[in-house]
Amino acid sequence: MSAEARLRELGIELPEPPKPGGNYVLARISGNTLYLAGHGPNGPDGLIKGKVGRDLTLEQAAAAARLTGLNLLATMRAELGSLDRVAAILKLLGMVNCAPGFDNTPAVINGCSDLLVDVFGEAGRHARSAVGMAELPFGICVEIELIAEIR
Amino acid sequence: MSAEARLRELGIELPEPPKPGGNYVLARISGNTLYLAGHGPNGPDGLIKGKVGRDLTLEQAAAAARLTGLNLLATMRAELGSLDRVAAILKLLGMVNCAPGFDNTPAVINGCSDLLVDVFGEAGRHARSAVGMAELPFGICVEIELIAEIR
Amino acid sequence: MSAEARLRELGIELPEPPKPGGNYVLARISGNTLYLAGHGPNGPDGLIKGKVGRDLTLEQAAAAARLTGLNLLATMRAELGSLDRVAAILKLLGMVNCAPGFDNTPAVINGCSDLLVDVFGEAGRHARSAVGMAELPFGICVEIELIAEIR
Repeated sequence: MSAEARLRELGIELPEPPKPGGNYVLARISGNTLYLAGHGPNGPDGLIKGKVGRDLTLEQAAAAARLTGLNLLATMRAELGSLDRVAAILKLLGMVNCAPGFDNTPAVINGCSDLLVDVFGEAGRHARSAVGMAELPFGICVEIELIAEIR
Repeated sequence: MSAEARLRELGIELPEPPKPGGNYVLARISGNTLYLAGHGPNGPDGLIKGKVGRDLTLEQAAAAARLTGLNLLATMRAELGSLDRVAAILKLLGMVNCAPGFDNTPAVINGCSDLLVDVFGEAGRHARSAVGMAELPFGICVEIELIAEIR
Repeated sequence: MSAEARLRELGIELPEPPKPGGNYVLARISGNTLYLAGHGPNGPDGLIKGKVGRDLTLEQAAAAARLTGLNLLATMRAELGSLDRVAAILKLLGMVNCAPGFDNTPAVINGCSDLLVDVFGEAGRHARSAVGMAELPFGICVEIELIAEIR
């Protein structure tokens, strides 16, 4: 099943792609490699902020990571015209805004990884790091950047 | 206008490329992709150190990010012979040495991004993350790594 | 000398490749580029945990970075069939779990870089960042991700 068809089957409607919060672009293509900027948990009520393990629970943070994934998908579709041009998700760098002592960063970033595998199937399985940051832009709780192969 | 001509127009003279602070090289090429090591704010008076939001202001940190960009340009020219071989700046990972609570990391890294867009024009517009680190090597206030497409 | 022959000469026996600690894969290939997930210091007694500069000395952390390198090699061999298919190590992102004030992150990550240069020679010389994180998954003391060119 194509990624766009799968997205409809899952009943997922993508948000508008976010606006860059600085002098950069959301996506850059070189040959058949797509580089996405770091994206955040941008939802209908704005950005989800706070330190995980203090201001947000693991479950809230994983939901924010999934929301970040929806933003990544929205940028990919805007850049490529269709998610069906994504041949493979290659690599995520998942960054969690951690309160001191919170180290279950993989479970947070799974919120995004699970979404990508749901939408792209085997092609969505990616290499990844999921690590804890001292600070993230504007206090967002999670930020994820992504490299994909396109066709 | 070519990047080298633009640099002259801007009156920018590049520093000597930095020396690696460990067992690594400053640049690696694979096909038409150039990977640069993390560079720091290496100036005539040495490295600019300190935590942003405590030891340095936003303005000082943005100037340090611009200086880091000059070091990245110096390494690119040394590696490629000329900046005119840079086809596109694809991706930055901008890392800021943040004091607790300082989260305006995008405005810091703009110091480097602005320079790259000044020098390369549209080809200099890149995807980016700009994030806050717990520590950076030798206490430098900012570190930036870069991926570019070359010809 | 081939990397596999050099490994035998050095008397190094690689561990089993690690298991991913989340919904991701250890490696992804796109064309002749290999992306490895962040790997940790997984040894015979489990993961090496703690904050460098508080729970571990620089020497212990550098040994953990070397152990992380052995895990990266194990994953590369498992993915490629043989390390002799590695054409070049291009880029490391070395992440150190730093106690406040510990900033000699390059000397820690040298533990991995030295190993890669030992095994691959000139082809093992890579671009790199070596930076300090607020937290790493499950409290591990170091995490390293890697991009390589393969044949």
